Amino acid sequence: MNIALAQLNYHIGNFEVNKKKIIQAINHAKDLKADIIVFAEMAICGYPPRDFLEFDDFIEQSNAALQNIAKECDNIAAIIGAPRFNYERKGKKLFNSAFFIADKKIHNIIDKTLLPTYDIFDEYRYFEPNNKFKIIEYQKQKIAITICEDLWNINDDGIYQINPMEALFSMQPDIIINIAASPFSYSQEEERKKILISNVKKYHIPLIYVNHIGAQTEMLFDGGSMAIDLNGLIVEELAYFKEDLQICSLEKLIYSPKEIKIANNKPDKIKKIHDALVMGIKNYFEKQGFQKAILGLSGGIDSAVVLALAVEALGNKNVLAVMLPSQYSSSHSITDAKQLVETLNVKYEIINIQPVVDGFLNTLSPIFKDLPSDVTEENLQARTRGVILMALSNKYGSILLNTSNKSEIAVGYGTLYGDMCGGISVIGDIYKTEVYQLAQYINKDEEIIPQNIILKPPSAELKPNQKDTDTLPDYDILDKILYKYIELRQGPNELIKAGFDKTLVHKILKMVNTNEYKRYQTPPILRVSPKAFGMGRRLPIVAKYLS
Amino acid sequence: MNIALAQLNYHIGNFEVNKKKIIQAINHAKDLKADIIVFAEMAICGYPPRDFLEFDDFIEQSNAALQNIAKECDNIAAIIGAPRFNYERKGKKLFNSAFFIADKKIHNIIDKTLLPTYDIFDEYRYFEPNNKFKIIEYQKQKIAITICEDLWNINDDGIYQINPMEALFSMQPDIIINIAASPFSYSQEEERKKILISNVKKYHIPLIYVNHIGAQTEMLFDGGSMAIDLNGLIVEELAYFKEDLQICSLEKLIYSPKEIKIANNKPDKIKKIHDALVMGIKNYFEKQGFQKAILGLSGGIDSAVVLALAVEALGNKNVLAVMLPSQYSSSHSITDAKQLVETLNVKYEIINIQPVVDGFLNTLSPIFKDLPSDVTEENLQARTRGVILMALSNKYGSILLNTSNKSEIAVGYGTLYGDMCGGISVIGDIYKTEVYQLAQYINKDEEIIPQNIILKPPSAELKPNQKDTDTLPDYDILDKILYKYIELRQGPNELIKAGFDKTLVHKILKMVNTNEYKRYQTPPILRVSPKAFGMGRRLPIVAKYLS
Repeated sequence: MNIALAQLNYHIGNFEVNKKKIIQAINHAKDLKADIIVFAEMAICGYPPRDFLEFDDFIEQSNAALQNIAKECDNIAAIIGAPRFNYERKGKKLFNSAFFIADKKIHNIIDKTLLPTYDIFDEYRYFEPNNKFKIIEYQKQKIAITICEDLWNINDDGIYQINPMEALFSMQPDIIINIAASPFSYSQEEERKKILISNVKKYHIPLIYVNHIGAQTEMLFDGGSMAIDLNGLIVEELAYFKEDLQICSLEKLIYSPKEIKIANNKPDKIKKIHDALVMGIKNYFEKQGFQKAILGLSGGIDSAVVLALAVEALGNKNVLAVMLPSQYSSSHSITDAKQLVETLNVKYEIINIQPVVDGFLNTLSPIFKDLPSDVTEENLQARTRGVILMALSNKYGSILLNTSNKSEIAVGYGTLYGDMCGGISVIGDIYKTEVYQLAQYINKDEEIIPQNIILKPPSAELKPNQKDTDTLPDYDILDKILYKYIELRQGPNELIKAGFDKTLVHKILKMVNTNEYKRYQTPPILRVSPKAFGMGRRLPIVAKYLS
Repeated sequence: MNIALAQLNYHIGNFEVNKKKIIQAINHAKDLKADIIVFAEMAICGYPPRDFLEFDDFIEQSNAALQNIAKECDNIAAIIGAPRFNYERKGKKLFNSAFFIADKKIHNIIDKTLLPTYDIFDEYRYFEPNNKFKIIEYQKQKIAITICEDLWNINDDGIYQINPMEALFSMQPDIIINIAASPFSYSQEEERKKILISNVKKYHIPLIYVNHIGAQTEMLFDGGSMAIDLNGLIVEELAYFKEDLQICSLEKLIYSPKEIKIANNKPDKIKKIHDALVMGIKNYFEKQGFQKAILGLSGGIDSAVVLALAVEALGNKNVLAVMLPSQYSSSHSITDAKQLVETLNVKYEIINIQPVVDGFLNTLSPIFKDLPSDVTEENLQARTRGVILMALSNKYGSILLNTSNKSEIAVGYGTLYGDMCGGISVIGDIYKTEVYQLAQYINKDEEIIPQNIILKPPSAELKPNQKDTDTLPDYDILDKILYKYIELRQGPNELIKAGFDKTLVHKILKMVNTNEYKRYQTPPILRVSPKAFGMGRRLPIVAKYLS
């Protein structure tokens, strides 16, 4: 039995485009003599559709596309994910389902049992969990169809009461097929392989896994669909960050030669982040129907890295870099930025913001009178830049890329409506120390980002001789505390026990918590870590905990 | 048996303040000879704590506060809500629990069974549902303790598989006590009374209901705690939008005189919205530690209504109104605005934005050259206003109130980083047609908002002779379509079937969907409807459905 793994980039709610892609893949698989083709979870509508699921019309459109797709399935079976109405029993209105199609008909439906409702996931918001298990028989093979999370309670020690594979295993399947919508984070590939191989080894059944690729706003899908043989060896591994379709025979998964090794070694975290961000930018523009990007280039490392990524994603012709010096900008800021745009062969503009900043100060002087300068005047500069960048973005129909990093977003070291503007935040899930690693990665073959940008001490350049360290601790200490607080959810006592200075811990945690109001208005942030700001981290603005 | 209903305004994560309030209420109830005092769901930590629940430290602090509170419970029992660790069984890490305290000890714990995970609620994200039922015996009375949603599957026809009251009823309780965190919407009071009275009538058991009051950022709690007698009559109804503590005897609930009528008639929707918004503003400032507000006063109805509400919430001395005319501002805009600030006795500034706008245009002219004027120049004006308002807010340590209404937020008729700036959106959940009703309500006793502001056609005044209706249909048609799409989740076919013009329906739905990117960066919006923009409505930015 030949199984095709179809790893595609879907567009949420774009039923026409998704249907066309799916039918093309079916025809391609027929040409390759596949007996079955497997698509991802929620392939027909794209993932995550979120509250579109509350519209009956949306489900009906998905159903209609499914019927059209079924008609193409002659001489091939298909397994494909889509939402469906719950007509069977009490509970939520929908199931998250896998449809088994053969002879142009839907022969069977499997519903998802384990519904992730943590981090970015909200599946219990929409779906009723399955509680009845069955095996699909096709061409004398017994197939255990599972949907993503259904395989993740392997050790039966997690947040779920049951492990669906236990029930399915008792029915003696010949193969496990898992259709997934498993978003990228830099640790996800390793984690995913560990879980899938554990399932294979525990049940001694080969496994086919099909994931999405592509970006859905902030959520990135890396693909990495795979086939794992009886012995737990990955015998087929599809591309990362690219559409792919491969055929694998069930026989190969049962009698595979022992010498095949696991395809990948431990994946390179920074390379993966890099590839994910490039895809994230590219897909955001493509799916929103935009070609051109604009960004403010300060001469610092953050905007330099974002520019390099944008050029890779969109092409140098489609990116406009804007330098916006003020009276506090150092001369090297412009020369470093110029060197970068010349290396990347990107169009640029230099716009002196001082006249407008002075205009604001003049306008405000009858009110401010002799009040001393403070953060107001710093923010004014950042906001003047924001207005100019947004004006260029409006006039040219381009999207402004936000260049804030995760460290500064965490502690609120940025100006709302100033440098926090943008349609999408490219490196908002990358700590400052990781931004440097990303710069080194970008420079691995040649010096794209000038060494001077990498070496100089970070500064917002909003007042004379300003340095980030005037306000913040060194980034390697800051980032360690932030990582433990944000990613690991460690509280102050654990942090202090780990050896961090008590005063510093309380200062940083307070900064993180009291700046929730700024993050509420941040652009969507491309998610590359297991805990990014955005939908995956939900905190009240008004609160007193640790602040 | 005398039962005290303690309806308090908690501050999320502020364990010291919450504990103090709770202990004060316990002492007050002791003075009133109460046998039991009942607090709301999650009273100790405040609701909703969201992802703070993922921090062990947060739960430990809550536990510590609970232990301190228990020590005060001599000669009185207490029922109080708090999260607790799930040590008992597999599943999520926490339970959402009601603690029964007597003789200074925790005697019993009841966990919540039905965990709302729709609209603004995310309870299944954190909590394992209860599946074992028990009755608490105290002073020979059998008490069925339920937590909020536990009573809401009364007809057993909803999104849940079970109805906890069925199990509890079989144990023959004498009284039902429901501790709740039931957020306000303009239809919630009616809905809540209907559900609670249905429970009483179905089981023929009296009921005590204790809710929160106060605002938690966008989420508003109206209170309205109550005691319902055997016959389904509300014999005690606590204040709305105010802290309150009342005593009710169980005897009264069993032998109440028949002539008591349900306290309220159908509540006045606009009055409720008004009171909710005033509380929302007031609490946002108090809990964030701010006194002073600022807002841009355009001469239009939206900012006029927000100003009137802000003055009521914060006092006229604490609000600064700023008029920001440009070359396109009509003369009546300033005169109308002046009349309003004089009536309200509010300090104001008039700042002509034209010099700064011209400064931006000069700065941009070498780049824009002869490109025709478009939305860019309109946005420039709105953003110049935004920068000036934020500068004043920074300099004076005040919070900028956002004045966008729900109709314009829905269709994207506003400028990101311009008129969409602000710390909190006051009327972002009020359709334009409701803004007029709110203005009439504010004017019910005397003319606060000048008639001219109410009567003139809405205009953004960003280009000559602009009217909202140049771009949008009449608001009474627009708002009807928006309500059906947003609140009722009706799709295009249902809308067209209801008689709306097909082209118009598609145009409006497309505007709503393609402007999700703007709403992502909107300030938090005080929630008064059953479906507000924000956490309760989660939609992808990149999507093609109906756009």
